[in-house]
Amino acid sequence: MAEKTKILVQLDTDALPSVFDRIVAIDAGAEQVLSYGGVTPQNVAPLVHGCIFTRGPQDLHRTAIFIGGSDVQAGEALLSEVRKHLLPQYGLSVSILLDPNGANTTAAAAVRVAARHLDLSRARSLVLGGTGPVGQRVVRLLARAGGHVRVGSRQLERAEAVCQRIRAQVPGAGVEAVSVASAADAPAALDGRQLVIAAGAPGVVLLPKKIRDKANALKLLIDLNGVPPAGIEGVELHDKGTIRDGIVCYGALGVGSTKMKIHKTAVAKLFESHTAVFDIEEIYQLALHLD
Amino acid sequence: MAEKTKILVQLDTDALPSVFDRIVAIDAGAEQVLSYGGVTPQNVAPLVHGCIFTRGPQDLHRTAIFIGGSDVQAGEALLSEVRKHLLPQYGLSVSILLDPNGANTTAAAAVRVAARHLDLSRARSLVLGGTGPVGQRVVRLLARAGGHVRVGSRQLERAEAVCQRIRAQVPGAGVEAVSVASAADAPAALDGRQLVIAAGAPGVVLLPKKIRDKANALKLLIDLNGVPPAGIEGVELHDKGTIRDGIVCYGALGVGSTKMKIHKTAVAKLFESHTAVFDIEEIYQLALHLD
Amino acid sequence: MAEKTKILVQLDTDALPSVFDRIVAIDAGAEQVLSYGGVTPQNVAPLVHGCIFTRGPQDLHRTAIFIGGSDVQAGEALLSEVRKHLLPQYGLSVSILLDPNGANTTAAAAVRVAARHLDLSRARSLVLGGTGPVGQRVVRLLARAGGHVRVGSRQLERAEAVCQRIRAQVPGAGVEAVSVASAADAPAALDGRQLVIAAGAPGVVLLPKKIRDKANALKLLIDLNGVPPAGIEGVELHDKGTIRDGIVCYGALGVGSTKMKIHKTAVAKLFESHTAVFDIEEIYQLALHLD
Repeated sequence: MAEKTKILVQLDTDALPSVFDRIVAIDAGAEQVLSYGGVTPQNVAPLVHGCIFTRGPQDLHRTAIFIGGSDVQAGEALLSEVRKHLLPQYGLSVSILLDPNGANTTAAAAVRVAARHLDLSRARSLVLGGTGPVGQRVVRLLARAGGHVRVGSRQLERAEAVCQRIRAQVPGAGVEAVSVASAADAPAALDGRQLVIAAGAPGVVLLPKKIRDKANALKLLIDLNGVPPAGIEGVELHDKGTIRDGIVCYGALGVGSTKMKIHKTAVAKLFESHTAVFDIEEIYQLALHLD
Repeated sequence: MAEKTKILVQLDTDALPSVFDRIVAIDAGAEQVLSYGGVTPQNVAPLVHGCIFTRGPQDLHRTAIFIGGSDVQAGEALLSEVRKHLLPQYGLSVSILLDPNGANTTAAAAVRVAARHLDLSRARSLVLGGTGPVGQRVVRLLARAGGHVRVGSRQLERAEAVCQRIRAQVPGAGVEAVSVASAADAPAALDGRQLVIAAGAPGVVLLPKKIRDKANALKLLIDLNGVPPAGIEGVELHDKGTIRDGIVCYGALGVGSTKMKIHKTAVAKLFESHTAVFDIEEIYQLALHLD
Repeated sequence: MAEKTKILVQLDTDALPSVFDRIVAIDAGAEQVLSYGGVTPQNVAPLVHGCIFTRGPQDLHRTAIFIGGSDVQAGEALLSEVRKHLLPQYGLSVSILLDPNGANTTAAAAVRVAARHLDLSRARSLVLGGTGPVGQRVVRLLARAGGHVRVGSRQLERAEAVCQRIRAQVPGAGVEAVSVASAADAPAALDGRQLVIAAGAPGVVLLPKKIRDKANALKLLIDLNGVPPAGIEGVELHDKGTIRDGIVCYGALGVGSTKMKIHKTAVAKLFESHTAVFDIEEIYQLALHLD
C-alpha cells in the first residue's frame, strides 16, 4: 500500500494563519497543510487528538504539527500545552516544529552564518536587542557554542534576567549583561567584540556608524532587521558577506536564504519520525548539517 | 479529459473544524478538503450553492459534503438546512455524510461488532446512556435488527421519550424504557440481557462489576467510553473480543478500528453518486458489507 | 528540479470564504488554494508578504492572489490595499484576480455573449440596473467597445454619476443616463435600443413584457438575474440564444457557461506571470480570445 499523505497541521496563534508558513510548508514537501488560526491552549486539545487518533503509530510520522504566529510567547505556551495531549507511552505522538514569527529559524540562521566566519567556541560577541525573542535565542546558541556573549538591552535588569535564564539552560555559559541605553554605553559594550548581531525592534538604529568605527576587534556584523533603517547603521538589507570597511556584513535578506533553507529542512525532518520536537536548539543542530 | 478532483466540503459546527475528520477524509481518498468552522443553518446556503453550481451534474459526484462538529443536534439541524438548498430536480445535488462527534460511525461500529457475536434479530439488549446521541442511534439499529432493546437512563421519562421516537421510526420496534438511576435498579434492567452497550457520558461508571456478576444471560459487553474509567467496570479500553469471566468484551479502542473502517468507507462512497445521504441507517448498511 | 506547486491565495471579505471560488480555482488548475475569510485592508499586509517573500522572483508566477466576497466595493478596496504591499521594484509581486461576487466575470460574460450577436462598436444598448456593481462594469465594457449606452436606474442622479465616472475612464464614451423609475419612463429608455442587459437586484422585474413588445429595434435580451422572476419578463433562466418573438434571449444560466469559462481562464492566466492584475477590462480581453 502507498505511503500516507504527508499532513502538516499548522496551529497559529494569530487570527489568520500565516501565508508564509503555509507556502514554505508546501515547498518543503508537506502534501496537505491543515491551517488553523486563533489557536490557544484552551482550544487546542481536540486538534492534537485529531492528529494522534487518526493513524496508527506506524503511520504517525506522516502527520506533524507546526506552531506559529506573530507572538512568540503565545507560541511557546501553545507548544507546552500541545505536548500535554500527546500520548507517547502508547506510541501516539507526532513531531512538532516551533517557529513563531520565524524566531527560531532566524536565530539559527544568524548563528549559522556567524559560524562560517568565526570560531564560535572562542568568539566574543555582542547581541543587540538581546532580550527580544530572536535575541534571546541567538544568545543561547552563541553561549552553547562556548564563546563569550554580551547581552545588550536598553534596560540592564532585563538583560540580567536573560543572562540568568541562559545560565540555567546552558551550564557554564559565558554571558554578561550590558546596558546600551545611550550612545555613551556603546564603547564599553563593543570593546573587544568580534561579532555583533542586531535583533532589535524594527526602525531603531541600535549601533550608529560613528561609534562602531572605534571598535577595533570587529570582524562580523549581522543585522536581522528586515525593515530599513538597519539596526546596525551601514549594513544593507541585501548584504551577504559583503565587506564594508574591512568588516564582513550581512543584512536580513542576506541571512534570509539560510533561514529559508533551515525552515524547509526542519519541515521535511518532521516527517522522518513521530516523536521529534524542534525548538531552537534542535533547529540549530539541523542548521549545522546544512551546506 | 481527466476526472475532476475529488473535493470534500467539511461543514463543522464548531469554531475550529475537526482535524480528525479532515485527516480521515484525506486518508479515505478525498483529494481536497475544504474546511469550514462555525457553520450554522443561517450561513450555510452560499456554501451549498458553491457545491452545486460549480460543476455539471455529470461531475457532481466528485464534490461532496461532510457535516461534523461536537454538537450532534447542531449537526442534524445543519443537515436538514443543507438539504433545502440542493436542487435535485435539476440534477444539482451532492452526496452528504452526517457524522457529528463521530456519533453515527461509532453507533454503527458498536452494533456491527455486536452482530459478529450475536444474532441481533433475536438478541435481548440493554443500552446504557441510551438517551444520548450515540445511545439513541445504537437503540435504533438494534431495534431495526429485530431484537428486544431496553433503553437505560437515569431519568425514566427521557428513556420513554426515546422509545416513543424509535417506535415511530421503526414500526413494531421492541423497545422498553428502564430506569438505571440507582444500583437498586440494575438487576431488573439487566435481567435476561445478553448484550450491554454503554454509551454514556465519559467518567461515569454505569455498570459496576459486582452488579453484572449476577446477570447470568450476559454474553457480550461493549463500552464506548474512550476516557477511563470505563462505563462498564472491568472492560478495558483496548479490549477487542477479549474474554473476561466468560464474557466477550470490547472497549472503545477495540471498536475503534471498525469505526475507522466504516468512516473511511462512507467518505469513499460519497464520490460514487451525487444524491446519497449517509445518516445512521445508511451508514450501518455500509458497515454490514464490510469484512 | 520540478516546478513549484501552483498556489492560489484566496482573500475573501466574507467571514466564510466562497466555496464557489475555491472549487473553480481547483478545476482551473490551482494545486493548492489557501483560503482566508474576513480579510480587510487592515489585516491583509502579512498575507501579501507571505506571498512575495517565500519564493524567488523566478518562481513567483506559481503563487497568485484571488480577491472575492459578496461585497464588491469591499473587494475593490482590498485590491487597492493588496497592491500597496507588493514590491515590484524588487521583482517581488504576484498576479491578482479580482472577482468579488463574480461581478467581473459575469459582466465580461454578458458583453462577450452580446458581441456574438451584435457589432458592439455600433450597437445601441440599454443597461438596466446600470448603477450596480455588475451593471457599471457592463456599461464600461459596452462604452469601451464604441457603441452608445443608456444607463438605466430608478434614480436618475445615480445613473448620471455612473456616466460621469465612465467618461473619465473611457475617453469619448457614448453614455447617457435614463430614468426607469416608472413604467411611463420605459418607452423613451427603450426607444431605438437593439440590446438590453438587465443587471438589477434579484426579484425585481425591470422590464415587463407588454412594454418591450413596443420596442421595434430590439434584437438581443440578456438577463443576469439568477433567481426568478427574471429582470426582463419572458426571458427564462436557461435561455441561451433562444429566439422568443424574434428576439435572441439569454438567461443567467445561459450566460453561465461563458462566465465559468472566463473565470477558469483568468485563474489559469494568473500562473503565467507574476505581475498581472485582472480587473474588469483585462478579464474582458481574456474573454474576447475565448472560443
